[in-house]
Amino acid sequence: MTNLIEYEDASDEVRAVYDDIRTTRQTEYINNFWKALANHPPTLRRTWETLKEVMASPGEIDPLVRELIYIAVSVTNGCEYCISSHTAAARAKGMSDQAFGELMAITGAANMTNRLANGYQIPVDEQFKR
Amino acid sequence: MTNLIEYEDASDEVRAVYDDIRTTRQTEYINNFWKALANHPPTLRRTWETLKEVMASPGEIDPLVRELIYIAVSVTNGCEYCISSHTAAARAKGMSDQAFGELMAITGAANMTNRLANGYQIPVDEQFKR
Amino acid sequence: MTNLIEYEDASDEVRAVYDDIRTTRQTEYINNFWKALANHPPTLRRTWETLKEVMASPGEIDPLVRELIYIAVSVTNGCEYCISSHTAAARAKGMSDQAFGELMAITGAANMTNRLANGYQIPVDEQFKR
Amino acid sequence: MTNLIEYEDASDEVRAVYDDIRTTRQTEYINNFWKALANHPPTLRRTWETLKEVMASPGEIDPLVRELIYIAVSVTNGCEYCISSHTAAARAKGMSDQAFGELMAITGAANMTNRLANGYQIPVDEQFKR
Amino acid sequence: MTNLIEYEDASDEVRAVYDDIRTTRQTEYINNFWKALANHPPTLRRTWETLKEVMASPGEIDPLVRELIYIAVSVTNGCEYCISSHTAAARAKGMSDQAFGELMAITGAANMTNRLANGYQIPVDEQFKR
Amino acid sequence: MTNLIEYEDASDEVRAVYDDIRTTRQTEYINNFWKALANHPPTLRRTWETLKEVMASPGEIDPLVRELIYIAVSVTNGCEYCISSHTAAARAKGMSDQAFGELMAITGAANMTNRLANGYQIPVDEQFKR
Repeated sequence: MTNLIEYEDASDEVRAVYDDIRTTRQTEYINNFWKALANHPPTLRRTWETLKEVMASPGEIDPLVRELIYIAVSVTNGCEYCISSHTAAARAKGMSDQAFGELMAITGAANMTNRLANGYQIPVDEQFKR
Repeated sequence: MTNLIEYEDASDEVRAVYDDIRTTRQTEYINNFWKALANHPPTLRRTWETLKEVMASPGEIDPLVRELIYIAVSVTNGCEYCISSHTAAARAKGMSDQAFGELMAITGAANMTNRLANGYQIPVDEQFKR
Repeated sequence: MTNLIEYEDASDEVRAVYDDIRTTRQTEYINNFWKALANHPPTLRRTWETLKEVMASPGEIDPLVRELIYIAVSVTNGCEYCISSHTAAARAKGMSDQAFGELMAITGAANMTNRLANGYQIPVDEQFKR
Repeated sequence: MTNLIEYEDASDEVRAVYDDIRTTRQTEYINNFWKALANHPPTLRRTWETLKEVMASPGEIDPLVRELIYIAVSVTNGCEYCISSHTAAARAKGMSDQAFGELMAITGAANMTNRLANGYQIPVDEQFKR
Repeated sequence: MTNLIEYEDASDEVRAVYDDIRTTRQTEYINNFWKALANHPPTLRRTWETLKEVMASPGEIDPLVRELIYIAVSVTNGCEYCISSHTAAARAKGMSDQAFGELMAITGAANMTNRLANGYQIPVDEQFKR
Repeated sequence: MTNLIEYEDASDEVRAVYDDIRTTRQTEYINNFWKALANHPPTLRRTWETLKEVMASPGEIDPLVRELIYIAVSVTNGCEYCISSHTAAARAKGMSDQAFGELMAITGAANMTNRLANGYQIPVDEQFKR
């Protein structure tokens, strides 16, 4: 079992990241992902900066849609932790059971057709090569 | 090279699917994916019915967002054909270069954190187990 | 481009493997896979011994079925070389277009349901835990 | 934990699928996969129709072989639920311990050679491009 | 649950492999991986010979580095057993917490850039095609 | 085809990253990966900062070993661009043909045993759960 580093036991470098997570997310809760990454502070800091920029900065893609995309990738890779945490995040941002069902249907179908395209070794249509 | 079956050479069963693709998508163009699947008509019919239902029927998730999800899965699986065809479909539905950049950033970050979660074998937080 | 090592240019160690491939498969043809692995003779020898034992030794699973399984894995992993070479091998052992279509349908469906099971985080039924 | 929907609590739409599963498989038992998909009835119905057609309709590939292919894909993707359920199905259709061992050996070897082909970037032999 | 075959219950063929594992690794302990593979003795023998040659024979790559590579692959594939066993092996060979953190950072970054390269469909630079 | 952004056509933000790549790597050459990411400057900047930190900052893992790990991941994921570029980088740092052969052997074997562990659903040994 990976050691999970609590705020009380953390170095100043790790605490600074935990503080920024709390401020950005407006919650006291630090989830286990960050407590595990804190075993290697540069990875904690860099990963948090990446996720903060990718998931929480202004952009064209809506925050809930970003979570749907995250779930689709995590389901495709079979990452239990990420499926659990991002499904919780998506529900907190308003994902309904119906939307989750549609998301699973799209994700499943894409995984199916990805393999059909592999197996039949289908040449890319000229008009798709812009 | 997989044989691509043209409308002129297709059986009635295959033509019926091609006709429905044309009507549903409001275009004369049948892309190579369907012409390849036509080598096994039950797979052509079933796959089209699945995609039509999942990608084109009414639902909570917006049609453009469905394409973004499809691309995220296809990029994760490394399916060149599917990346090409669904990127074209997403652009036709309004995806900007900026949105594509954001999509790639999210997809890349998710693939990174999926592996960090695997490697650190992080236990799922109790509050994520609803 | 990986250097492909021809029989004429091969060491005795590599030639011994090429000779055994020719005898076992009853053909003069050495395909590019082996010519590439010959860059590292221990990997060539070990990989050939593995494939010979797994694909060509007596067993309960029929030789053609072994090829179908190989294709299903290669399609799932998106390995173009392996899809091409094992599809050719399967056709040489009698795989029809119809059987290939069924194989793709099963492979595609399995990839779809694998992700549905991931996404819904379905607990394994007690009766499946023997 | 995903809610598993029992027959007693199911809508008519879901019950119709459960009834067809029972009739097709000639068993009262509905496994958790279907009870989870029932949270999104269109996905339940469509996935069942796909599996019924792909796994249980007449075809050239033997029903036990279809299960072997399903297991090979599920093992490659690391889907615990699917490995468990399809291994049980294959055993019910006659798969011996010996055949399972051979299946694992083929699946493992294919995953190894898929990566060797990737790493050496081996060009596809002309004769494999039909 | 797969049956784990203990030395006392093993055939002579299996015992010979267990004996060689003990001698090679200089430990009495046989881990569950081998006890599970013992259900199919040819796979046990062949897999052990492969790992012995690949991981324990003389070569240019240092034994600890071989474990780091093994972990990177296992993390990418999400294989819990392999992550656990090879992380233990790497620690026994001297991997520090710091090195494990660096390994995770590299593995995560590679998984991210692999997908960025897929998604942008980047042509390989001429100078990389030697 | 993704647009590749040359230095002459780049914004100041992109040029700053290109300049840092040149300084850090001590070469004028900017490879296509960065020219493609430049289509979305925040992703270019963030990805470069990540790679610079992970691959080029001081640490316990040797720079050549970092490249070997990168290749192992890229081969496992089947990313042609990344295999090509990181194999070139590893050769520039001193990887011999022999070492590449050993790397492929380890990567292939790990992919094989990952699936054997999945398929046999092997429980993790107590002593591996530290």
